[in-house]
Amino acid sequence: MDFSSKLLENAVNEVSRLPGIGKRTALRLVLHLLKQPKEHTGYLSEALLHLRNDVKLCNKCHNISDTALCEICNNPKRDSEIVCVVEDIRDVMAIESTAQFKGLYHVLGGKISPIEGIGPHNLKIESLVEKVAKGEVKELIFALSSTMEGDTTNFYIFKQIEKYEITTSTIARGISVGDELEYADEVTLGRSIVNRIPFEQSIKS
Amino acid sequence: MDFSSKLLENAVNEVSRLPGIGKRTALRLVLHLLKQPKEHTGYLSEALLHLRNDVKLCNKCHNISDTALCEICNNPKRDSEIVCVVEDIRDVMAIESTAQFKGLYHVLGGKISPIEGIGPHNLKIESLVEKVAKGEVKELIFALSSTMEGDTTNFYIFKQIEKYEITTSTIARGISVGDELEYADEVTLGRSIVNRIPFEQSIKS
Repeated sequence: MDFSSKLLENAVNEVSRLPGIGKRTALRLVLHLLKQPKEHTGYLSEALLHLRNDVKLCNKCHNISDTALCEICNNPKRDSEIVCVVEDIRDVMAIESTAQFKGLYHVLGGKISPIEGIGPHNLKIESLVEKVAKGEVKELIFALSSTMEGDTTNFYIFKQIEKYEITTSTIARGISVGDELEYADEVTLGRSIVNRIPFEQSIKS
Repeated sequence: MDFSSKLLENAVNEVSRLPGIGKRTALRLVLHLLKQPKEHTGYLSEALLHLRNDVKLCNKCHNISDTALCEICNNPKRDSEIVCVVEDIRDVMAIESTAQFKGLYHVLGGKISPIEGIGPHNLKIESLVEKVAKGEVKELIFALSSTMEGDTTNFYIFKQIEKYEITTSTIARGISVGDELEYADEVTLGRSIVNRIPFEQSIKS
């Protein structure tokens, strides 16, 4: 692309560094900002800078938080002995929106992925093992996505904590509520049969 | 969406004001920035603010430019008597990349669109009519997109300049180079037959 303005070129280049945004989309976004009042760009830049410079991670669960201890960890009504291990804040938000979980979270900040150069030491695994070692945890629920990276991470953590006497579980994999059986993939359908649950239990939830 | 951090919520809200970006995409982009070094967010904010505050429009063609007169208008090799009327800088970039046009541009900054509240006075039409009235223009090429808004804008400008003795033209509409006839829409195919050109001319370009 051949730009008539260095300022424009620079802005487009910076925006197109964001994931999933190419040069054309970046140009469209930047031209949109130019048509809006100047304050809009100001608010946007300020919000991004403010977030990047001032954001904190909760000391206990490592979730993004404005305070040293996040609202969930700080809530006395939640069961601090049940800990759900998730990848990032989006998973916390997804589980919270179900209103089915009353324990705390532990946000790893990613999954072990040798291809992307993410090893166990780039993740918040040590502090999780520490929590377990101190006897603060009674049950650990693994809720990472069921990919190779997710399974590897689950297994790595499991190996480190299996010597402690705690319950471990993973979230159930199976056919989505409302899905037709014939369109389900074989692995999911297979697991849903192997891990079937008593009928009485299913009608209660 | 229920955010655990006001800073995060604020940033996601600002990013999701951009066209075509919803809350989920905004969250993904913002979390990406959080994983990058702080400087990245700094560069991005700076580039956007710098552009929004310091960008100029060329005094002559109203294209985005870093100087009072853009490179194209300032180029003595270009024919200043042929003016191509376009909607915005993306059209200038598209035409420039063909290297087939040696005249100047006139960037309207949009199209007449009553639905979006854009009238003739929101566009740079007055200065175009002035150029024509002063006898600076010999040929005017309309290169707006062929939508209702584009056609309306073309017609509005044409009505204001028809009393002056200049040549007016619109870019050719027809089947794209390399396209199969059977898949072309009827309007385009119809126009390409009505506005057929001499064969000798077609093999030259």
